[in-house]
Order: sequence, then C-alpha cells, then structure tokens
Amino acid sequence: MPYGADQDMQDLLARAQRTSGLLSGGPPLDPAFVIDTLAPHMTPERLARIDAVLAGRTYTVATVVEGLVNTGNVRAVMRTAEGLGFQDFHVITGGEVFKGSERVSQGAEKWLDVHVWDSPAACARHLKERGFAIVATHLDEAAVPIDAVDFTQPTALVLGNERDGVSEAMLALADRRVVIPMTGFVQSFNISVAAALGLYHAYRDRLARQGYHGDLTEEQRLRLRAAYCLRSVRRAPEILQRALARSEG
Amino acid sequence: MPYGADQDMQDLLARAQRTSGLLSGGPPLDPAFVIDTLAPHMTPERLARIDAVLAGRTYTVATVVEGLVNTGNVRAVMRTAEGLGFQDFHVITGGEVFKGSERVSQGAEKWLDVHVWDSPAACARHLKERGFAIVATHLDEAAVPIDAVDFTQPTALVLGNERDGVSEAMLALADRRVVIPMTGFVQSFNISVAAALGLYHAYRDRLARQGYHGDLTEEQRLRLRAAYCLRSVRRAPEILQRALARSEG
Repeated sequence: MPYGADQDMQDLLARAQRTSGLLSGGPPLDPAFVIDTLAPHMTPERLARIDAVLAGRTYTVATVVEGLVNTGNVRAVMRTAEGLGFQDFHVITGGEVFKGSERVSQGAEKWLDVHVWDSPAACARHLKERGFAIVATHLDEAAVPIDAVDFTQPTALVLGNERDGVSEAMLALADRRVVIPMTGFVQSFNISVAAALGLYHAYRDRLARQGYHGDLTEEQRLRLRAAYCLRSVRRAPEILQRALARSEG
Repeated sequence: MPYGADQDMQDLLARAQRTSGLLSGGPPLDPAFVIDTLAPHMTPERLARIDAVLAGRTYTVATVVEGLVNTGNVRAVMRTAEGLGFQDFHVITGGEVFKGSERVSQGAEKWLDVHVWDSPAACARHLKERGFAIVATHLDEAAVPIDAVDFTQPTALVLGNERDGVSEAMLALADRRVVIPMTGFVQSFNISVAAALGLYHAYRDRLARQGYHGDLTEEQRLRLRAAYCLRSVRRAPEILQRALARSEG
C-alpha cells in the first residue's frame, strides 16, 4: 500500500486491486467455468455490452500515472482510460499525501487492471520485462512530438503530476520523452486534460496505423470476460462457490 | 451579462469581453500603429512567441460551451481551446447559477476572443450568419461519430454541461449531433475531458486533411497580433495615448 495515502485514495486503490486480482496470478477458477456459471444471472443486454467492451479493449498501451496528489485526478484519468479501452492502469505512489476529492471516475477502476507501485523503478522493471517501451510526457529539450510514437507497439504512457511532471527517477528510466502539441500561450494542460489528449492520441494513432484499436488475444478476452462477469453479478462469489460444491459433490 | 452568474464567473466573462473587445467592432486604432508603438516595449522573445502562437491560430473552428455551472470547467475548456489554437470561444449562459471554483485556465481567456450569449438562439444566429456548421456533442440515436465531421470547414463545436448535455433548444438549432467514441463501460467523460477529446480531434482532423492547423488571413493575423501586444504590455493604453497625442500634435 502507498504510504501517505489518505483513506479515500487507499480505498480506491485497495478496491481496484481486489477486483483486479480476482482472476490473476494463478486463478483458482477456470474463466470458462466462471462465465458459464454467472451468465444465467445476467441479462442478454449485459452480456452483449461486455462483448462490445471487450472488442475495444487493449493491453498494448498501458496508462501510468505518477505522483498524483489528488484522488479526483486519478479517478478522472482512470475514467478516460477505461472509456477509451486501455485496460492496464499503473499508479505509482511515492510519499505524496493524497488529497481527497469528489468521485469522478464513476467506478472506472472496477473495469481496469489496476497495478499499484511504491516506486518508479518497480513499475518500470515490470513494464520492461514485458517488453513495453516507456514513454514519458515531459516538456523539455529532449522531448519529441507524440506523433513520433508508434502506439501499435507495446507502450506505457507515463503522466506526471501538475506541479512537477514526471519524476527525475522515472525520466531516467524512460525510453522516450514526448510532448503533446501546444500552440498557444498556455504552457500546460491540467493533468486530466493532458491524459485525455495523450490517450486519445494513442487511440487515434492505433486506428490510423492498423485500422483497429481492440486487440485482445483469445486468452485475454476469455479471462477478462470472466472478470467482467464477476464484477457484474452481485453475490458472484457465493454463486460460484455453490456451483463448485455441486460439481465436486 | 449572464443573469444568475456569481461574481467569479462574472469577473471571468467581463474581463474576457473587455480584452476581446479592445480591437473588435470598429477599432479606434489601426493594428499596425498599435504594433509599431508597443513593440519597443516588448522583448524579442515575446514578439517571437506571439508570432509562433499566431502561426497555430484558427477562426475556422469555434468552441461553444453551454450551460456550464462550474466556472472551473469553463476555465479548463478555455485553457484547452487556447492551448490548441482555437481563437473563438462562445459561452452560452442561461439562468444557471454558476458555482465558483479555483482558477484553472491560467488566464487563457486573455488570449481568446470570448463571446457571451444569453441564449442558444442568439449564439446560433451569430454562427449561422457567418457560415458555421453547428455540431453538437450529444449521445443519442441521431448522433454520428465525430470522424464524420470535416473540421477544415467552418464549424462550431458545442459542448454541454455534465448533467444535461447540450440543451434541447441548441440541439434543435444544430446541423449535426456527434459522439466522441467510447468503447468502455464508462458512459461519459467529464466536461473538461470531453472538450479536450473533441478539440484535439478537430485539431488532428485538420492536420490529417490539409496538413496544417493555423489558417489566419493576413487581416486576422495583423489584428490579433495587435491584440496580443495590447495584452502583453503593461500600461499599453497610456503608451498608445501618448503616441497618439504625439502623432496628432
């Protein structure tokens, strides 16, 4: 758990990790069994909605937020990432005291794979081991326009906080520094706007380069469909337990 | 002035109109005279910055916000529009009580042509007389994806408030209804994020279709350069008055 986080942020991250973790890291349940067991408890519309969402989902581009001091900002970025189909969401905490805020994510964390890291190094190691290029949004001489990035390749887009941007530690670990074009007098956008511009750019870039955005493998699609069923059905754990008992009994 | 607006919003809009109005509607001063008189009071860096901003400016796409109840949201949208080079900014007020908020626009209103309207009809009339297509962002059956819009043509992008979206009155006046793609479970973005997505989409669409974004005429460029000099030099009115007296004396 992040140190220094207030209760609101702790709740958000704990809840996100709890739901994310249900089927990851050696799942005790077969995704197909979960889906078959829970599907009768869902409306056809809900199942169709889940499939529509899955069709637009990707793990190829991950969102990383670092040092956000405002829970509301984290929620806003989660909401945008979820709405645009970016499934992996990394939160790097680090001694910051989070300030509570009104809810703005509408529970978007429920539909994302949320990963919480105590340090930029731990997050970067995880990403690099999985072949992600780390792209930090940062305005300096070494930065190139975001157009230069090919978002059809595994890419983690790192967004820093409003005051300090991405940390020096994270910049040192990043493969590239990019800027989002700004042609006006205003020198920065607020973090939820900057995240929206960066993620929408990545979304459009993927469409322009390859003609599609969602690109789950069959295994990812199955696992995520099971996770979404779990998160959609009230009392899903009890229903699954009863079904397990029957199949074993 | 909007009725029902609180002091914060009134201040914002009054300041914006005051600066916008300095050179519009039958300017008392020749723009070239303003520039020549004020240029010696500015650093070369400032003048270069003004020219760089002018190069990325357009009047072809206008931003319209309607019924925003939160001053902070208006400021955030202004900041995004300014940062992306969209010069014309319309605010439709209408009996809403504005809630004050922290400053987030960083004075972006200073660099925009801000127009304030009491009703959707008055705003739409102004836009239609000038040949703008009115495009409302609205999620319903009649809406098409925003990709369908050609933002190289004169277009006003209308953004409604978070609770109700664009008003029925404005929808009836709109030429098209568009949606910003959302592939997730989240059904809406917050207004500053929705505005960022819509305006960034328009910016990229212009680049993709015609290869450039900024498209001021020489007359617009000259007038806006004069306006930016006026807004950049402290005591500009006094300096201009002295210069006028000299030239007449």
